[in-house]
Amino acid sequence: MASKLTSRDDDYSKWYNELVVQADLAQHSDVKGCMVIKPYGFAIWERMKDVLDGMFKDTGHVNAYFPLFIPKSYLSKEAAHVEGFAKECAVVTHYRLKNDPNGEGVVVDPDARLEEELIVRPTSETIIWNTYKNWIQSYRDLPLLVNQWANVVRWEMRTRLFLRTAEFLWQEGHTAHATKDEAVEEAKKMLEVYADFAENHMAMPVVKGVKTESERFAGAEDTYCIEALMQDGKALQAGTSHFLGQNFAKAFDVTFADKEGGKSHVWATSWGVSTRLMGALIMTHSDDQGLVLPPKLAPIEVVIVPIYKGQDQMDEIVAKCQEVADELKTAGIRVKLDDDDTKRSGWKFAEYELKGVPLRIAMGPRDLAKGTCELARRDTKTKDFVSLDGLAAHVRTQLDDIQATLTASVHERIKTHTHVVDTWEGFLEALDKGGFVSAHWDGTAETEERIKQETKATIRCIPYEGDTTPGTCIKTGAPSARRVLFAKAY
Amino acid sequence: MASKLTSRDDDYSKWYNELVVQADLAQHSDVKGCMVIKPYGFAIWERMKDVLDGMFKDTGHVNAYFPLFIPKSYLSKEAAHVEGFAKECAVVTHYRLKNDPNGEGVVVDPDARLEEELIVRPTSETIIWNTYKNWIQSYRDLPLLVNQWANVVRWEMRTRLFLRTAEFLWQEGHTAHATKDEAVEEAKKMLEVYADFAENHMAMPVVKGVKTESERFAGAEDTYCIEALMQDGKALQAGTSHFLGQNFAKAFDVTFADKEGGKSHVWATSWGVSTRLMGALIMTHSDDQGLVLPPKLAPIEVVIVPIYKGQDQMDEIVAKCQEVADELKTAGIRVKLDDDDTKRSGWKFAEYELKGVPLRIAMGPRDLAKGTCELARRDTKTKDFVSLDGLAAHVRTQLDDIQATLTASVHERIKTHTHVVDTWEGFLEALDKGGFVSAHWDGTAETEERIKQETKATIRCIPYEGDTTPGTCIKTGAPSARRVLFAKAY
Repeated sequence: MASKLTSRDDDYSKWYNELVVQADLAQHSDVKGCMVIKPYGFAIWERMKDVLDGMFKDTGHVNAYFPLFIPKSYLSKEAAHVEGFAKECAVVTHYRLKNDPNGEGVVVDPDARLEEELIVRPTSETIIWNTYKNWIQSYRDLPLLVNQWANVVRWEMRTRLFLRTAEFLWQEGHTAHATKDEAVEEAKKMLEVYADFAENHMAMPVVKGVKTESERFAGAEDTYCIEALMQDGKALQAGTSHFLGQNFAKAFDVTFADKEGGKSHVWATSWGVSTRLMGALIMTHSDDQGLVLPPKLAPIEVVIVPIYKGQDQMDEIVAKCQEVADELKTAGIRVKLDDDDTKRSGWKFAEYELKGVPLRIAMGPRDLAKGTCELARRDTKTKDFVSLDGLAAHVRTQLDDIQATLTASVHERIKTHTHVVDTWEGFLEALDKGGFVSAHWDGTAETEERIKQETKATIRCIPYEGDTTPGTCIKTGAPSARRVLFAKAY
Repeated sequence: MASKLTSRDDDYSKWYNELVVQADLAQHSDVKGCMVIKPYGFAIWERMKDVLDGMFKDTGHVNAYFPLFIPKSYLSKEAAHVEGFAKECAVVTHYRLKNDPNGEGVVVDPDARLEEELIVRPTSETIIWNTYKNWIQSYRDLPLLVNQWANVVRWEMRTRLFLRTAEFLWQEGHTAHATKDEAVEEAKKMLEVYADFAENHMAMPVVKGVKTESERFAGAEDTYCIEALMQDGKALQAGTSHFLGQNFAKAFDVTFADKEGGKSHVWATSWGVSTRLMGALIMTHSDDQGLVLPPKLAPIEVVIVPIYKGQDQMDEIVAKCQEVADELKTAGIRVKLDDDDTKRSGWKFAEYELKGVPLRIAMGPRDLAKGTCELARRDTKTKDFVSLDGLAAHVRTQLDDIQATLTASVHERIKTHTHVVDTWEGFLEALDKGGFVSAHWDGTAETEERIKQETKATIRCIPYEGDTTPGTCIKTGAPSARRVLFAKAY
């Protein structure tokens, strides 16, 4: 078992790093910036992936797979895109190793230099639109609704497990449409899918909105986003969906014959979420004892720990625990019976607390006699003795309640940590308190940048919901069309 | 729709290439050796992946994720491994691009050279065993049963879609055990899982066996394999499972404290199958009209095509087809109703034939009146008129029969195309006929190599089943311990 975690109050960042490692979610690898996702962490990601994949398919999307490598010249084809992505990339220059003539392992074969360097994909718009050119001829080929689950690489100097790593796992949707309206509708629809997933599976309600021009994806005409609020008052961008206009269609010359026989460029979207969601999930719900998982994404919803002394008691109690486990499993609940005899029950309690298992059932000789068990909730740390009769139904109700309680508490967090301010002093005070700050801004990139430089706060989004009354900018006093949401962010 | 395929008799290789592209399975990308897996092809791979993943989990394995990049020096740590894998690799030497000072796009930033080059993983033993060092301390940490779904890169000069590509998708299991026996048992168990999957899902019975020393995985003490037989008489290695001994544990210094307090090196296995299975699937069952898919892996098991003239007929028939589709869907059958009004039914018939959909239902005005439909089988090309009453049960029976028929025909193919020979002349004649050749071999790598040079035939495996009587080598006349299986192979 792990040692005690640093408390969130003492050092939130340290708490996070320790939690990720001690709860067996991920660890740094020897390769700078690349993480190893450990089995327990990966099981959570798999659940996220399965749910999201189902949601994408329910909205008409299909999966495909495009190459890991992008020819260097492709990145330059879309002017804004190259500015954003042709920077910190992993560059493949050679395709062969050979034995070191000095006998020291292997060296790069200088004769095997690529004519054109290949970039490990930081995102796949360019390679995909280069392919779409051949897939799209007529309006009959549209819409094209494709998603890809893949690894991508963006060389990062300062990395944090899940939140910012050189290699990460994600999905990237890339769709093609006959009209602008349809593409905008798609980009917005996928943002709703993300928000639905965040609220109803991650128990993490989010703010939906549009990015300012400076915060847009490189190559997008509009970037829609969901912004989550962490326990330390910092925002985290949890997913983005981009309306790409005709930028990539023009860069890669993708046109289609419309119903009237004319020829037009195709309209595009792209949208993605990544293993960063794991970081968001962890920071949203967990506490000083470890991870807290919403039941819907927990690989184990219920753990059963038998309590006994001696072999005879053990046999009897483990047999009863197995019965209970089977009953819960039959009811569709993900259950684990931990009957490992080499570990004490106290160790197990702490371990499953650390790993965020939503419910713990403990059963000892007295319970056996009375036909009860002890049921402990990870989120509220409350315990109850409950009857084994109708246990599955009771467990299901408790799991639903945990999911709802976690969701409600994040709703409340956003509500109490969204500060509406009208002055620069008020703005600075609100930032100190943490959370979202709803304030007027004059709409210029210059003011946005000045505020960022002075306070580290950025405009997270122009929210869908909220006050749209005009006012005056907190920084410059110039006219403002409406309030926007500021925050310090991950 | 696609143009007519080259026939298998005219040019098997050309037939394969055309089929893969025309059935929308995959295509070459602009990046040399890397393929694009198209949505229809990817849907088949997804089904394979889901089934296999379930089988791995049922045998106690968990998934994790390890870095894409491997430090160059890691490859040299296991002596045999470096010989096998430190050759045709994608090498990352730089981590940044910058704007070309001459204004021509972007160039590699010479200041951003990595201290140690990174290799895009050709397989992950080295990075994983370097990680296991910290995961394994005691016998309590064993066995460690981990699998990873990932992309890997082996630079290939001559590529063929699915069969041999620079980047491919696969799974790689990497397990660690306390004893030699347990590791050997694991390697053999996973071979059984592969063979089970091949026979019972791909409808592709295989020969199970052990590789000769020359054909072993680089770093393995034994390589178990499943060998499939394609329609053109060539063998295809469809999956391998390796007993790695203590080679990687020693190379990366992975030891554990055993129950008696001693310290030993860990025993290892690794095992994998890849998108190459797609190539095997295609070449095993398909015909001159296109793909033939076993129902268990078909993304669409049944397609329904309405036949009508004019809007009134269309509305009525499409409504009925929708009813039928709903009924089949409720019965758990993967069904597609193609009511696209812009395409003729003849076009649709050919299209779904090309795409290998196992069953086709066509329904016209007469069927509507009589309460029947036309049911056509893709594998036998037989058609029947069947009642709509109890259709779902009938369809299920037909699908099961198609799966069984395809499996039986491959069993038969292996049986009739395994030639037992005792002379060199007989060997050459048998190779000309195609298929497996069961023959005596003197057990030396020299003879194996000579035979390969002269005939292009390799020893596919020393089969689990078959004649183990000693004899004399077909090439040298030297004593042979038992017969082995030769074939020309993909």
